[in-house]
Amino acid sequence: MANICLKIEYDGSHFHGWQFQPNVVTIEEELLKTLRLVLRTEIRAIYASGRTDAGVHARGQVANFHVNLENVDLHRLKHAVSSIMRPKLAIVEAKFVADDFHARFNAISKQYSYRILNRDAPPVLDYGRVLYVHKNLDLIRMQSAARALEGEHDFKSFQGDGCQARDTVRKIFRSEIIKADDYLIYQVEGEGFLKHMVRNIVGTLIDVGSGKIADIEKILKAKDRREAGMTAPAHALCLDWVRY
Amino acid sequence: MANICLKIEYDGSHFHGWQFQPNVVTIEEELLKTLRLVLRTEIRAIYASGRTDAGVHARGQVANFHVNLENVDLHRLKHAVSSIMRPKLAIVEAKFVADDFHARFNAISKQYSYRILNRDAPPVLDYGRVLYVHKNLDLIRMQSAARALEGEHDFKSFQGDGCQARDTVRKIFRSEIIKADDYLIYQVEGEGFLKHMVRNIVGTLIDVGSGKIADIEKILKAKDRREAGMTAPAHALCLDWVRY
Repeated sequence: MANICLKIEYDGSHFHGWQFQPNVVTIEEELLKTLRLVLRTEIRAIYASGRTDAGVHARGQVANFHVNLENVDLHRLKHAVSSIMRPKLAIVEAKFVADDFHARFNAISKQYSYRILNRDAPPVLDYGRVLYVHKNLDLIRMQSAARALEGEHDFKSFQGDGCQARDTVRKIFRSEIIKADDYLIYQVEGEGFLKHMVRNIVGTLIDVGSGKIADIEKILKAKDRREAGMTAPAHALCLDWVRY
Repeated sequence: MANICLKIEYDGSHFHGWQFQPNVVTIEEELLKTLRLVLRTEIRAIYASGRTDAGVHARGQVANFHVNLENVDLHRLKHAVSSIMRPKLAIVEAKFVADDFHARFNAISKQYSYRILNRDAPPVLDYGRVLYVHKNLDLIRMQSAARALEGEHDFKSFQGDGCQARDTVRKIFRSEIIKADDYLIYQVEGEGFLKHMVRNIVGTLIDVGSGKIADIEKILKAKDRREAGMTAPAHALCLDWVRY
């Protein structure tokens, strides 16, 4: 019996998100099928650090699974899976972990990045990977609003529809916007996130940048989804890494 | 009569390079066709800072053209061209320049970037935009070899087949490799480049990194194409900007 932990990169545009759903292609199902094929054995389940939404990318998703085998050639496993799923998904790392390791419950924090192209010309080389915002955004105001989200807050105003979490308090370690040429990159590291939370924050930060919203702390305090901005689209969001 | 200068981003994978050729789709021809359509007038020619090879991308190619019109709405021109050619090409900037401005002859320097993914897992999110090298490359040796190319040298050893330039001396202002996670990014700024010169340099730097080549200065001195490494593929090369 072995517990194997994978670090995974995937292009979210090929999948309907991580979590298994009937009649659509999901990362959980495709990866499980490929692992069974490569290892030629039954694998009951694979546990991710978190379920990314449809369209969301990952550079460093982490997931673990148990397998009833004595010897697993991790090098072969890694290459076989990457080769079968190329270029939609690749295994960046594969290692044995302790029996009780769980990719979701043992995670200390995660970082997501959201990329905005802020210029008056549509994306070309980053088409499908960035959100295009042509109106001029006020970076200084956005940066200060982003920083105001750091710390422990009730993020109820940023909770997506259908999110079952009752406790909406989350701890954010870092919330920052970096400018690189015409790109604004929002990076957020936190213990955990509510459904659509990062995308709702980005939608709100864009409203701050365009002058539509003045005070993000007021929105936090309102604990009302209707006060915050729209949900920014999934294709510009990426799970960068998970810390254990 | 107006002389209009464009800053252009394009995805090289959609084109057979800049220069017009019969029976294939080139940037020069497609852009000229679109400009004629949008401006509803004849345009004889468009001059780029340099002709990028088939597959090479650009974030900041510069080109100019003359048009026999009194009033040109540059904002409309920029948006109409980007909209017609989306998502293969976009006009990032359009402006009037002096009658005698020429995008090629007036260029002071250009920067190219070449992106290598150096890890033991194939590219996913950067598929088609990076060169995948799975064997471990020695960054320190590559960096020192890259720096040895700075200054004025005879680059005959790095001149591509069929290149008609007789004078093979070129001045390189900066030649550097930057590491960002698993990516090695080669950036080179120079007055001008011979055909395939950047790609031949990259092929040679990879040989330096893998230990196949020890002394890049010896290769420079040999003035013999057979001494240098292979031509690295086009899809990982990008023209970043042109300075005037």
